Amino acid sequence: MPNVRYLSGFSGSNGLLFVQHHRSTLFTDPRYDLQAHEEADCALRIVSGSTWEALWKFAARRAKRVALEGDRVSHQEWMQAAGKLGRGAKLVSLDGAVDRMRMVKSPAEVDAIRASARLCVQAFLQAVRRFRPGMTENEAAAEIDYRMRRLGASGAAFETIVAAGARAALPHARPGVDRLAAGQPVLIDMGANLGGYMSDMTRVVHLGAPPRKFARLYQAVLEAQQAALEAIRPGVEARQVDGAARRTLKKHGLNRFFTHSTGHGVGLEIHEGPRIGAKSKDTLEAGMVITVEPGVYLAGEAGVRIEDTVVVTTAGAEILTPAAKELVVLES
Amino acid sequence: MPNVRYLSGFSGSNGLLFVQHHRSTLFTDPRYDLQAHEEADCALRIVSGSTWEALWKFAARRAKRVALEGDRVSHQEWMQAAGKLGRGAKLVSLDGAVDRMRMVKSPAEVDAIRASARLCVQAFLQAVRRFRPGMTENEAAAEIDYRMRRLGASGAAFETIVAAGARAALPHARPGVDRLAAGQPVLIDMGANLGGYMSDMTRVVHLGAPPRKFARLYQAVLEAQQAALEAIRPGVEARQVDGAARRTLKKHGLNRFFTHSTGHGVGLEIHEGPRIGAKSKDTLEAGMVITVEPGVYLAGEAGVRIEDTVVVTTAGAEILTPAAKELVVLES
Repeated sequence: MPNVRYLSGFSGSNGLLFVQHHRSTLFTDPRYDLQAHEEADCALRIVSGSTWEALWKFAARRAKRVALEGDRVSHQEWMQAAGKLGRGAKLVSLDGAVDRMRMVKSPAEVDAIRASARLCVQAFLQAVRRFRPGMTENEAAAEIDYRMRRLGASGAAFETIVAAGARAALPHARPGVDRLAAGQPVLIDMGANLGGYMSDMTRVVHLGAPPRKFARLYQAVLEAQQAALEAIRPGVEARQVDGAARRTLKKHGLNRFFTHSTGHGVGLEIHEGPRIGAKSKDTLEAGMVITVEPGVYLAGEAGVRIEDTVVVTTAGAEILTPAAKELVVLES
Repeated sequence: MPNVRYLSGFSGSNGLLFVQHHRSTLFTDPRYDLQAHEEADCALRIVSGSTWEALWKFAARRAKRVALEGDRVSHQEWMQAAGKLGRGAKLVSLDGAVDRMRMVKSPAEVDAIRASARLCVQAFLQAVRRFRPGMTENEAAAEIDYRMRRLGASGAAFETIVAAGARAALPHARPGVDRLAAGQPVLIDMGANLGGYMSDMTRVVHLGAPPRKFARLYQAVLEAQQAALEAIRPGVEARQVDGAARRTLKKHGLNRFFTHSTGHGVGLEIHEGPRIGAKSKDTLEAGMVITVEPGVYLAGEAGVRIEDTVVVTTAGAEILTPAAKELVVLES
C-alpha cells in the first residue's frame, strides 16, 4: 500500500486508488471510513463489498485504457481486472512509475525520516547500555524493540537483528537463543517505523576490549563506509558509491568478504529505490534517502557491518543516524 | 513464502520451490546457504544471481507444463516466467492449491500453534498487570510486545492492538497516544509468532469496576463467543459457526453492531483459510485451527471483542488460548 499512501495520504491496509487527469478516487471499506476522511486528500468511495470489484466497475465506466501496477498486483488480480474492463478497453502495466517518483523525497518526507532515524538512535543508546554478558540475542532484540515503541515508534521497520560473536558473520542472522558473551562483539541492525517512515542503522559494540584483529577488521569497514559516504553527491552514479566502498576493502584484502550491495533507498518502505550496488543504473539526486552499509563476513569467525541512513544533499551526504561510529566498548 | 516453507521446511525470505513428481528443488541465494541445508528436505540450488531467472532456466529444460501460484506472484513475474519457458510450454495457475492443503494442520503444527498461543497468554498476563491509568496505548502495546519477545517469540504475529475506552469501537484501532484511564475498558488484540506459527487472542480488561451497561455488553459478546465455540465440530459448515454468534447477539439487539466475520484460520500466516463468515463455503475438519472472535462496536461509546484461537477436534473446539474470559477488573 505504500504507493496508495504516497499518492493519497491514506495509510489504512485496504485501499485502492483510481487516478484520472482531473481527479483521484480512493476505494476502501467501512472499517476505514473515519480514517480515510481524515487522511485522504481525494474523492472517497466507502464500499461494503469487495473494493476490488467496486474499483473495476467504476473504472469500466470511465476509461478505455487503464494502467495497473503489474509489479504490485498478483497475476490473479490482473486477470480479474482485465475481465471486468469493457470490451475494447485496454489494461497496461505501470511497472515502477510511482516507485520512481518516490525515490526523491520532499522536504517533509526527509523530516519524517530524520525523526524516525533520531528515534532509532535514541532507542539504540537506551537499549545498548542494558546489554550484559549472558543475555540472549532475543532478549537484547526485545529490549531494542521495546525502547523504540516507548519512544513512539509504531514498531520496528524490520525484524531487529542482534548477532552475537561469530553469528555476525551471517548477514541475515535472526536473533535466537545464543548469548552475548564477554570478550565478544555484538552486531545490531535496527530501524524504526515512525508515522509510516522507516530508518535503518547498523552498529557493532564489543563487550570488553576487542582483540587487535577484530579492531583492524572494524577499522577497515569503517574506512570503507567513510569512502562511500564521501562519494555521495547529486549526479554521481549509485554504482560509484558502491565502488568506493569495495575499493577501500580491496586495499585491506577484504573485498571478497563483502557479499552484498552497499545500500538501498529508504522511505515508506525499508527497501526501495535507488539501489546502491555494482550493477545499479540509478544516479543520485538531491533528496534521495539511502543507506550506506558495507560489511565484511568471515564465516565462523566474525562479521562487521556499519550502516547509516543518509539524505543526498547538494553538499553531499547528510547522516540521519548520528550515533558514534568508533567501536563502542561496553565494560561489564 | 509460507507455501514454500510449508512444502520444503525452508524459512528464509528468498526461496522458490520447483516441485516435480519425483523430486522438489529449492532455489535460494548464498545468504541462506547454511540455513537452507539445515532446514530444507529437498534438493538445493544456491544461486548467486537472480533466483527467479535460475528457476525458469531450470524449469524450461524439464517441463512442458508448469503451474505457478497466480495469486502469490505479481503479474510482472508471471509474464517474465511465461517468456522464459520454451515455445510450446504452458504456464497454468495454481490458485490456492497449497493454501487449501494448509487448512488442516498436522499434529506437529497444532503443537507449534499451541506453544505460540500459550506464549501469547503468558505475555498477556505478565503485561496486563503492569497496566496503569495514564499509560499510553503505545506504551501498553510496547509492554506486550516486549513480554512476547522475552518469552521467546520472534515477534508479534501482527501489530498489537491496545484500544483505550471508546477507541475500542474502532475494530482496527492502532495504538496511539491516548491514555488508559480509570473507570474505562481496554481492548487488547495480540498474537505471537513462535517458530513461524501464529496465535491470535483478544481480551478486554477494565480499569476499576465497570458500569452496569458495559458489563451487560461484555456478557452478550461472551455469550455469542460461547455459542460459536459450541457450534464447532468436524462436518459443520463454517458459516453456521458465524450464524451461532450472530443469532446470540440478535437476541440482545446487538447483531447490527457486529460488523466483521466471526473468524479465520491461523497457522504460518495470521490470516489463512478457512473463513468463518456468513458467506464462507468452507466446512470444518478436525485439525483446522481457527479464531472465534465476535465483537460489538458502538461508535464513540464502547467496543468489545472476545477472541480465542482454537483447534477443531472430533470432540469439538479445543481452546489454545486459555486466558480467563470473565471481564478482568484491574484495581489500581
